[in-house]
Amino acid sequence: MLYYLFEYLDKTFDFPGAGVFQYISFRAAMAIITSLTISLLFGKSLIRLLVKRQVGESIRDLGLKGQSEKQGTPTMGGLIILGAVLVPTLLFAKLDNIYVLLMIGSTIWLGAIGFVDDYIKVFKKDKKGLAGRFKILGQILLGLAIGSIMYFNDSIVIREKLDQEVIIEQGIDRTNASAHFNPEAEKSTKTSIPFVKNNEFDYAVLISWLGKGLEKYAWLVFIPLVVLIIMAVSNGANLTDGIDGLATGTSAIIGATLGLLAWVSGNIVFADYLNIMYIPNTGELTIFISAFVGACIGFLWYNSYPAQVFMGDTGSLAIGGIIAVFAIIIRKELLIPILCGIFLAENLSVILQVSYFKYTKKKSGVGKRIFKMSPLHHHFQVLGYPEPKIVMRFLIVGIMLAVATIITLKLR
Amino acid sequence: MLYYLFEYLDKTFDFPGAGVFQYISFRAAMAIITSLTISLLFGKSLIRLLVKRQVGESIRDLGLKGQSEKQGTPTMGGLIILGAVLVPTLLFAKLDNIYVLLMIGSTIWLGAIGFVDDYIKVFKKDKKGLAGRFKILGQILLGLAIGSIMYFNDSIVIREKLDQEVIIEQGIDRTNASAHFNPEAEKSTKTSIPFVKNNEFDYAVLISWLGKGLEKYAWLVFIPLVVLIIMAVSNGANLTDGIDGLATGTSAIIGATLGLLAWVSGNIVFADYLNIMYIPNTGELTIFISAFVGACIGFLWYNSYPAQVFMGDTGSLAIGGIIAVFAIIIRKELLIPILCGIFLAENLSVILQVSYFKYTKKKSGVGKRIFKMSPLHHHFQVLGYPEPKIVMRFLIVGIMLAVATIITLKLR
Repeated sequence: MLYYLFEYLDKTFDFPGAGVFQYISFRAAMAIITSLTISLLFGKSLIRLLVKRQVGESIRDLGLKGQSEKQGTPTMGGLIILGAVLVPTLLFAKLDNIYVLLMIGSTIWLGAIGFVDDYIKVFKKDKKGLAGRFKILGQILLGLAIGSIMYFNDSIVIREKLDQEVIIEQGIDRTNASAHFNPEAEKSTKTSIPFVKNNEFDYAVLISWLGKGLEKYAWLVFIPLVVLIIMAVSNGANLTDGIDGLATGTSAIIGATLGLLAWVSGNIVFADYLNIMYIPNTGELTIFISAFVGACIGFLWYNSYPAQVFMGDTGSLAIGGIIAVFAIIIRKELLIPILCGIFLAENLSVILQVSYFKYTKKKSGVGKRIFKMSPLHHHFQVLGYPEPKIVMRFLIVGIMLAVATIITLKLR
Repeated sequence: MLYYLFEYLDKTFDFPGAGVFQYISFRAAMAIITSLTISLLFGKSLIRLLVKRQVGESIRDLGLKGQSEKQGTPTMGGLIILGAVLVPTLLFAKLDNIYVLLMIGSTIWLGAIGFVDDYIKVFKKDKKGLAGRFKILGQILLGLAIGSIMYFNDSIVIREKLDQEVIIEQGIDRTNASAHFNPEAEKSTKTSIPFVKNNEFDYAVLISWLGKGLEKYAWLVFIPLVVLIIMAVSNGANLTDGIDGLATGTSAIIGATLGLLAWVSGNIVFADYLNIMYIPNTGELTIFISAFVGACIGFLWYNSYPAQVFMGDTGSLAIGGIIAVFAIIIRKELLIPILCGIFLAENLSVILQVSYFKYTKKKSGVGKRIFKMSPLHHHFQVLGYPEPKIVMRFLIVGIMLAVATIITLKLR
């Protein structure tokens, strides 16, 4: 909202310094400072309040070392993250930007579902919380909404880079970044994948392969994929949030990477130089994701081992959803298996563990396990690794995956 | 060295794919992958070897909780860092680049001094190690060498950005990044500081203030300052390396920030767009610093709480020196008090503690303390904070300082 105030001050009164609000970098900086301030200050008060109201999670006894110490640690700390994401975004981002609106909507939607879940667990003393099918329904609805808007809304466009040959042929000024792109912005079903020419992939190809003229049905592939991605990442974040600071730290790393990608994708000079897809108006998302990274880092202050607060579903469903929707918007969703490799591994460890157990039980009568315990981080706990060691090593792997994500896009 | 091999293959045989070695981004990616591989694999073997030879540090008894568990943890792990920095640099960087040579020289020099120190401590069972004055002498000599080379060597130059008015006046193509810079590279005593026009500061100003025509004596300010910076940062890293993973993690954050700054400073398109000083040939340093970041992250795998290995002076003197020299080369040395704020705080905590104790002892006969214990991280340990919590919070502060460093340079 401050953007409009300062734009007004700048244009109407030529107010000194107000012009700096035009710059995305300045507003992103303000967003991260604000979100850190909110999460650090508001975090402390909220934790005190939660402890007072005894909003503690009842820890399931998994027989793991140090687990009993966690009993009584307050949950619902995700409220800190939600506040530290939304307030700076509302203050510093342009609120008529469709991408910003999508992000705000997704955050509130999943945050609310997670909150209801935590609320039932804590205050209704019902350990199951919101029935699983409602959570999944919420994710599906969000996926359908995001998928349809991305596909059908006319203000969601990209600008294609011209072929180098066309540029030379038409004698276009080679030092002018904007001239390298098609002047017409266009609707597109293209996304980014590594290792191929221009790092581009078109969903329409999957359909047109079935027959010519079917390209217009590309949404039949795209929308279900969006639903799947949102479910997978949201659920992955939820599972990852099992030891102190793991989901928070992982999300901060992923957020920083997505922020970098959004910034360069939304800036014509960088997009041209780095030879990546130029997506007008996504630069504004840098402000949202800066707030997100600040929120995660600020929350980690209290959530790192030994944790004074847990985020609960209020936090984990939302951060997973934020990451998924953000990646979809900046057309990097097919990089998620690499970038969010930790979430993927946690998801897979549960799926494999359960399937293998059922399979062996059915076959030989005795259920066998692949991991000592799932999700994956518990496996290492059972093996005797100390909790902070596991977290730090997972975070190191997270950093490597982030580096890999950036590297794969740059190799040409 | 591989750079020259592939350049030869590319130019002579037009060998497919060999051309990719021209790209700094590609070689930086290879450097970080290599350094991670070396530190993770070589780290494991080295730790086993060190344990076998019983290269354990004798831990001074400070009466801190959990300290006795550290007895027997091997030291000299800094060898892992040195290898993981030097090998990828030798493989992937251009070795005729003066900046790369300065970095390699500094790393070996300080690494060797630290190694001798550790060697005496461990094998001669002399807890004092190398006498303090030799370590300081080594740092001073390095500072004198780096300062003189930076000041007097003719291949160390910058290219000034032209005034916007000159650009418009002369009708220079505004979309051509190179045209924005003075075509002549020049020797300069300029460096970067935040909050002023163009973010530039000229050391010569300090001298010319004393009288006109004295600018040529700017080295009288510059060289002592270089010595001071190298001593301060190297010593700061040494003090910071007191709890598991702290120096390693902090250095990784600082290294990543410096790498970003080197990359944009050495790239004319980015330097122009971001309105920062363009320093030809510093892009090559991105390869060195990628190896450094990879080395720190890889070492953190073993060094994070609870640590399986300590870096010893072999590591800490070198990483401090690397950070200082790197910052000086890319003319960001005056940002060190912000970027390396953790090192600064650790340094100051010791200085304040000792001075105040001596002062009060002299005055009232009873020495008083400001902190429960110094360096600073021990203060929090005495206050009862768990070691991994202190480390994570210090790292969070380190990230905030890195963000602050980048923000201050971008605000215009």
